[in-house]
Amino acid sequence: MFFASDNTGPVHAEILAALSAANAGFSPSYGEDAMMTEVRNRVRDLFEAPMASVYLVATGTAANALALATLSQPWQTIFCTPLAHIHTDECNAPEFFTGGAKLSLVGGGDKMTPADLAAAIHSWTLGDVHVSQRGPLALTQVTEMGHVYTLDELATLTAIAADHDLPAYLDGARFANAVATLGCTPAEMTWKAGIDAVSMGGTKNGCLGVEAVIFFNPENAWEFELRRKRSAHLFSKHRYLSAQMLAYLTDDLWLRSAQSANANAAHLANGLRAMPGAQFLNDPQANMIFATLPRATHQRLHAAGAVYGLSGGPLDSGDADEPLACRLVCDWSISRDQIDRFVEIATT
Amino acid sequence: MFFASDNTGPVHAEILAALSAANAGFSPSYGEDAMMTEVRNRVRDLFEAPMASVYLVATGTAANALALATLSQPWQTIFCTPLAHIHTDECNAPEFFTGGAKLSLVGGGDKMTPADLAAAIHSWTLGDVHVSQRGPLALTQVTEMGHVYTLDELATLTAIAADHDLPAYLDGARFANAVATLGCTPAEMTWKAGIDAVSMGGTKNGCLGVEAVIFFNPENAWEFELRRKRSAHLFSKHRYLSAQMLAYLTDDLWLRSAQSANANAAHLANGLRAMPGAQFLNDPQANMIFATLPRATHQRLHAAGAVYGLSGGPLDSGDADEPLACRLVCDWSISRDQIDRFVEIATT
Amino acid sequence: MFFASDNTGPVHAEILAALSAANAGFSPSYGEDAMMTEVRNRVRDLFEAPMASVYLVATGTAANALALATLSQPWQTIFCTPLAHIHTDECNAPEFFTGGAKLSLVGGGDKMTPADLAAAIHSWTLGDVHVSQRGPLALTQVTEMGHVYTLDELATLTAIAADHDLPAYLDGARFANAVATLGCTPAEMTWKAGIDAVSMGGTKNGCLGVEAVIFFNPENAWEFELRRKRSAHLFSKHRYLSAQMLAYLTDDLWLRSAQSANANAAHLANGLRAMPGAQFLNDPQANMIFATLPRATHQRLHAAGAVYGLSGGPLDSGDADEPLACRLVCDWSISRDQIDRFVEIATT
Amino acid sequence: MFFASDNTGPVHAEILAALSAANAGFSPSYGEDAMMTEVRNRVRDLFEAPMASVYLVATGTAANALALATLSQPWQTIFCTPLAHIHTDECNAPEFFTGGAKLSLVGGGDKMTPADLAAAIHSWTLGDVHVSQRGPLALTQVTEMGHVYTLDELATLTAIAADHDLPAYLDGARFANAVATLGCTPAEMTWKAGIDAVSMGGTKNGCLGVEAVIFFNPENAWEFELRRKRSAHLFSKHRYLSAQMLAYLTDDLWLRSAQSANANAAHLANGLRAMPGAQFLNDPQANMIFATLPRATHQRLHAAGAVYGLSGGPLDSGDADEPLACRLVCDWSISRDQIDRFVEIATT
Repeated sequence: MFFASDNTGPVHAEILAALSAANAGFSPSYGEDAMMTEVRNRVRDLFEAPMASVYLVATGTAANALALATLSQPWQTIFCTPLAHIHTDECNAPEFFTGGAKLSLVGGGDKMTPADLAAAIHSWTLGDVHVSQRGPLALTQVTEMGHVYTLDELATLTAIAADHDLPAYLDGARFANAVATLGCTPAEMTWKAGIDAVSMGGTKNGCLGVEAVIFFNPENAWEFELRRKRSAHLFSKHRYLSAQMLAYLTDDLWLRSAQSANANAAHLANGLRAMPGAQFLNDPQANMIFATLPRATHQRLHAAGAVYGLSGGPLDSGDADEPLACRLVCDWSISRDQIDRFVEIATT
Repeated sequence: MFFASDNTGPVHAEILAALSAANAGFSPSYGEDAMMTEVRNRVRDLFEAPMASVYLVATGTAANALALATLSQPWQTIFCTPLAHIHTDECNAPEFFTGGAKLSLVGGGDKMTPADLAAAIHSWTLGDVHVSQRGPLALTQVTEMGHVYTLDELATLTAIAADHDLPAYLDGARFANAVATLGCTPAEMTWKAGIDAVSMGGTKNGCLGVEAVIFFNPENAWEFELRRKRSAHLFSKHRYLSAQMLAYLTDDLWLRSAQSANANAAHLANGLRAMPGAQFLNDPQANMIFATLPRATHQRLHAAGAVYGLSGGPLDSGDADEPLACRLVCDWSISRDQIDRFVEIATT
Repeated sequence: MFFASDNTGPVHAEILAALSAANAGFSPSYGEDAMMTEVRNRVRDLFEAPMASVYLVATGTAANALALATLSQPWQTIFCTPLAHIHTDECNAPEFFTGGAKLSLVGGGDKMTPADLAAAIHSWTLGDVHVSQRGPLALTQVTEMGHVYTLDELATLTAIAADHDLPAYLDGARFANAVATLGCTPAEMTWKAGIDAVSMGGTKNGCLGVEAVIFFNPENAWEFELRRKRSAHLFSKHRYLSAQMLAYLTDDLWLRSAQSANANAAHLANGLRAMPGAQFLNDPQANMIFATLPRATHQRLHAAGAVYGLSGGPLDSGDADEPLACRLVCDWSISRDQIDRFVEIATT
Repeated sequence: MFFASDNTGPVHAEILAALSAANAGFSPSYGEDAMMTEVRNRVRDLFEAPMASVYLVATGTAANALALATLSQPWQTIFCTPLAHIHTDECNAPEFFTGGAKLSLVGGGDKMTPADLAAAIHSWTLGDVHVSQRGPLALTQVTEMGHVYTLDELATLTAIAADHDLPAYLDGARFANAVATLGCTPAEMTWKAGIDAVSMGGTKNGCLGVEAVIFFNPENAWEFELRRKRSAHLFSKHRYLSAQMLAYLTDDLWLRSAQSANANAAHLANGLRAMPGAQFLNDPQANMIFATLPRATHQRLHAAGAVYGLSGGPLDSGDADEPLACRLVCDWSISRDQIDRFVEIATT
């Protein structure tokens, strides 16, 4: 019963098979492999962006930090929410890769509003050499609290950025889950909504470790390549990144897996909804559930070996009825049996 | 006939099998996987270093840059040869990861002498705030020109560094090939020879992408972990790094593969030695050969599809007898048939 | 009628005279001048800190950024208020000098409370490699809104930092004004209150451009010197920094000037207090006044040539009675005539 | 008898008078002072460059590091000689300000030849993501060994850089001394010779601490301003930098002082030339002399209180006749009496 994160599950069989299939003979290194050409073409087709620059890296933090560093200057500030992964979970990676840019925290939660963003931008006076200069907008989709921005919301926020000549980056560690939720195309959720660069995560959705970084404006390409190399994120045996991404893009594996993950979360949510004492902290929109359960429920679940994030108080001591918050993440691989067992234990 | 690099070959079957075997169920992420504990123990045993800190990263440049940044300060200079990979092939990664340290080039080739090193150290006056401060010694073993430092040579160089309180790092991208050449133990080639930190490369020797970074002084451990995280080199699905390294350490796969690679290079060298017009630029000591062949020979080899590094003049135009330099690298996987065919074409 | 800042006024005659007096013959450069020895001794006496390290730089931002970089690591976060000069007015200098540290904003104003600080520290989980690591506390005294922390307030905040092994830095751009307000000794406002490093500003208080940076723990000394040099803040003709600071410390010029500035501000505040329509935004404690005046009043003052910071709306259009906020800073040099004239125009 | 450096002498009386004259009343801070407008106009006139961007900083290292950072990218290499001040005497300031650029050492002395430069540029393969990318050319005029490039030499070197689309920077810490030697105009020695940015040093030539940084291509302007601010080199009381530079530019004080310094050095050189045992290491071209004198001569000079740089062996022990190298720098202020006394003691 692993609901800790979508990076704790196994690699999809189709991905693993692709690694084996790629393992024949010699191949040029450092991204010159033939499979990468195929990946590039497929991504461009998928995003309806024939001129896009497409790169692969192995971690989501690398994708975020490299993309943001390419879009910003060291004396600028990046606009993100206080719950953004780049702020809370990357040990200052954006600051490191950008050479010392600042992160300005917008709003108070995981989703920013247009008013929040406008206020944050205006808080740094244009043309004043003393202040942090306005830099890129960084959104996360699916957000860190499991929300999914609508296409309109994205377009409205990126339009505000564009009004100030600021580029927009989308952290798509759970890109596929968001597309699955919205039922839109990748193009609609990115450049058609004003996004300039996006990461399309594979790692949390069945890959071993691969993320695509896509720039819709190809002028950023060579700089990104240099940044990737000097930050040691250019793989010599790059074909094994290409092979993962190629399998991920084949027969919509990326979308199928995300749909499974979202459906798993919906199934879990349904189970919890029926349970007395469960309280949803927000409406689950993708593959993450934020809810409170009574302490006694958590104790039963832990005793049964369930693994997931818990916050708001100690597990072992305190009122049995006190609600404690938890984060439950479903990946594509978790079985309905496991979910049902979780619900059963929780409900008992 | 791929002799371009030892990073163009396939992944060893035992490594691939280990990835599949690791692919069952859920596992804690970010290095908390059970396999990493096993890796740590095995590395400590292999290096006879029960207190060593052991980390995995996916690229050789990451290993080098993170280890050197941990051992140095931004106002220091690292001492390496002008042919060191960290100077010539990493697009300023050491400068980036260290926050602006300098590289002082020692000697004129791929191996430094004690006199070279002493002169370089003394060129930066101790206690003078104006100059680059003396920092770590960085050696490469096997060197970039295929040489292998003897244990005495290593010990003499690290002793000079230690006399100046400078730590010594060993870039072991081809660590196994050097051990195979010297017939020594990993401990003898590292801490017993005065090395403070070392990378033990897997990528060029049959792994998909994994390098172990080992600090014999565990006080550097936590800083390294923070540096790895903020540079985006901590893998969420870390078990797949662990699995590679575990297989690599099982039944001496690391040593067997390196012995194969070295033997392949020796076989090729023997073939070339018998060939009129071939001139060795140095005595091959591991899995790399540096030699000159007549232009016409190169033309025949290229026509037959051989792939390798060529320098010193154009392939297509010029005197047929003019000697052009080449680098020929054998990995563990290249077949004797391929080597024999190369020699045959060259000799014809 | 210049109330824009205390950095717009002239240099005190005693400082200028000291520059002339220092201008005889040759003197060793880069801080080896004899006057610097005298400065060091005087500062140590003044702060009752015989082991303190004492350095001079020319700008307040250099003092802040160099001191904080010396006290922190690139993967840490500095704790300061959202109004801290290091956050709002230094164009990412702290991020640059630290190599990418983050600033965590504590509380909602210019003064932080113990509860604010504790909450901010606890928001970054100890021992978690994913998050920004806890770093130094940075306080400003006089604060950016003209407040003065009491000695008890300082001691309480630094004790919280010390409980978490975090050092405390005091941005003393207006150090003298705060001492003048509190009537305490420099030692009481610094190391006796738990401060580990402090800048003692001269530039805003009658010097041409000099700030002392003082570390009470001398182990930071050599690193600071290297950081100062590599950031180009070590003056070759250092004697002219020494001469300024020596004059500043002679016959308590630093304190006399601050007392004048504070008294000037008190005089201005008295004038405004009697004025209908003036509203103080806070109680002036040093040499800065934050108040609202009706738009029409601002219009009269501007027409008469008064210079000061205005915010909250356009000067030229809008309701004549609408209150607009302003910042009025008095330095040591402004004459009572100028102040009286300002009040008179405002009151008319 | 101070010949240690041209930064150990006093400030010229005209500069000091200008500081006093500037010390009246209030003035806008941070470079908004009226005098800076006048400085800008004067520099543009002097350099016949009406569009040039003109900035003031207080140290030569700041001028170099900020200008080079503005002209380069972190993944590039700067081309300079192994004796360049930016390499030998700035404690990694260029690496810090550029965010980790490399310095490639060109040639073997203080002057590079066209062949040296071409070889260095070609050593980094164009378009190869693995290597340090080609960046700016950095020349020093007067060089660190007292040489002066001819206008033709400058033009030839910058043309090579321009052929590779690389900008050229001139470290003009002793700009005035070089102009005095060449008898050319500032324009001829800079943009007419292909220089894109230059520092015009004041500090070593009679100012207290001021250097002008001039970009002939104004597109670099705003970036430079941001870099200056975030590196803490923007002075609040900027008028005192402006006043120095204005006086320096008035009635050709910059040129008069440099002519005095050069003439002083020529006078000293004449004295030494007549002296048995003195050997010039190169032909003095500006205000620096590099020569060897017998150890006994150095001993007499030191006993008499002469101060200057000595190298090549201990002063106190060894053969009395052994030649030891020294560097003798004359500034504008040293008296002929002092020089004559030095020669007399040396000759005795």
